[in-house]
Amino acid sequence: MNDKPTLYTSLSPALIHLYDLQDTVVVIIDVFRATSTIAAALHNGAGSVIPVDSVSEAIKISKEVGGIAAGERDGKLAEGLSHGNSPMEYKREFIEDKVLVLTTTNGTRLLHMALELGADDIVTGSFPNLSSVCNYLLQQKKNTVLACAGWKDKFNLEDTLFAGAVINRIKDHFSIHCDSSFMAEYMYTHNKADLLSFAKNLTHYHRLVNRFGYIDDIAFCLEEDSADVLPLYKDGHLVAG
Amino acid sequence: MNDKPTLYTSLSPALIHLYDLQDTVVVIIDVFRATSTIAAALHNGAGSVIPVDSVSEAIKISKEVGGIAAGERDGKLAEGLSHGNSPMEYKREFIEDKVLVLTTTNGTRLLHMALELGADDIVTGSFPNLSSVCNYLLQQKKNTVLACAGWKDKFNLEDTLFAGAVINRIKDHFSIHCDSSFMAEYMYTHNKADLLSFAKNLTHYHRLVNRFGYIDDIAFCLEEDSADVLPLYKDGHLVAG
Repeated sequence: MNDKPTLYTSLSPALIHLYDLQDTVVVIIDVFRATSTIAAALHNGAGSVIPVDSVSEAIKISKEVGGIAAGERDGKLAEGLSHGNSPMEYKREFIEDKVLVLTTTNGTRLLHMALELGADDIVTGSFPNLSSVCNYLLQQKKNTVLACAGWKDKFNLEDTLFAGAVINRIKDHFSIHCDSSFMAEYMYTHNKADLLSFAKNLTHYHRLVNRFGYIDDIAFCLEEDSADVLPLYKDGHLVAG
Repeated sequence: MNDKPTLYTSLSPALIHLYDLQDTVVVIIDVFRATSTIAAALHNGAGSVIPVDSVSEAIKISKEVGGIAAGERDGKLAEGLSHGNSPMEYKREFIEDKVLVLTTTNGTRLLHMALELGADDIVTGSFPNLSSVCNYLLQQKKNTVLACAGWKDKFNLEDTLFAGAVINRIKDHFSIHCDSSFMAEYMYTHNKADLLSFAKNLTHYHRLVNRFGYIDDIAFCLEEDSADVLPLYKDGHLVAG
């Protein structure tokens, strides 16, 4: 059917300019860990998450709005911030009704790149909020770009796996002619039975687990629908949609 | 073992700048069809292949060297050129001892990008010359980048599958920490038993077969070691190494 909306997968921020983001839903994907952390914070009652590009901006804006300056650089807590990029830090008793001002190496940067390319319908996606993302895409019925954040512009497999999970659920409703999307769904369907074991093959797993010991983070970030909320970008804030 | 050379896979020309190409073997991969055609021409006795960026340059240089101006734009014969980008055009009776001046949408452009990034050990790879490429990499024992040409900077799966085939054969001799390489080998090993059937899933297959009817080209381009020569880049020419 030619009247189905299109769906493409962008494997890296360095490829996002190849896709038309006008009148398109853009799903920002940074599985380890920005978009999983955004889902956790909003699911646990955060008023909003403000994604910002730099540590200094996170500190400045958090003071202005009375929020929490949080984030990471190269996978660890960035200097000058009070909290990191672990979804485990944002339990309800801590984050409810607060504003999280978040800066990360890849995910928040990609969101701003999408804005600069004219995107005006942006959500964030991760395994913890897979169903909400899929339901939104099915409801919007618009052209869709699944935008993987990768690692410093390099391809990574965990973001691709999430793109594959989305495609696996909604592909009948979209027109998909895109090798990235085909590959993403292939990798997901062949490994979905045990994503946590499969993750041991990924470079980012080694960065987070072997170097920093974040095994609980990884497990959370790969669990489907454990923080099932839709983070919608509106006027500089991600809010529960 | 830490003294093994590294191996990375670059999934698109738009990502090649992320890799250090100094003192590195760079394998240019454009399976459909530039690097398969280069292998065919050299295997059938062409004196050399001169990769050039533009149609006008192909015409100019072919006149200077008395060579054959060949190539494609968007998968079809480019205007002003006498021959296209099909490996089937370069049988021995036609190409032996001739110089082929070739311009293509993706592969020849990527080769020049690698040169600009400082690469000084460049070969071209395709299924028809898989063994020669692997043997060269094993012999050189240098850091290696498998550089996929993709399609207009977008990821494509056929170049990735070839990268996977190389990795599958030589991985024990390299230090590989790269999600692109892991994914490439995964896709190859799971589909190598019948690449021609699997290729029906690829966007480029549809472009070449459904639009132009190049099924023989596709079959040739996916057949391992059918034109097993090593195209080595030296002083502007690709020559049989």
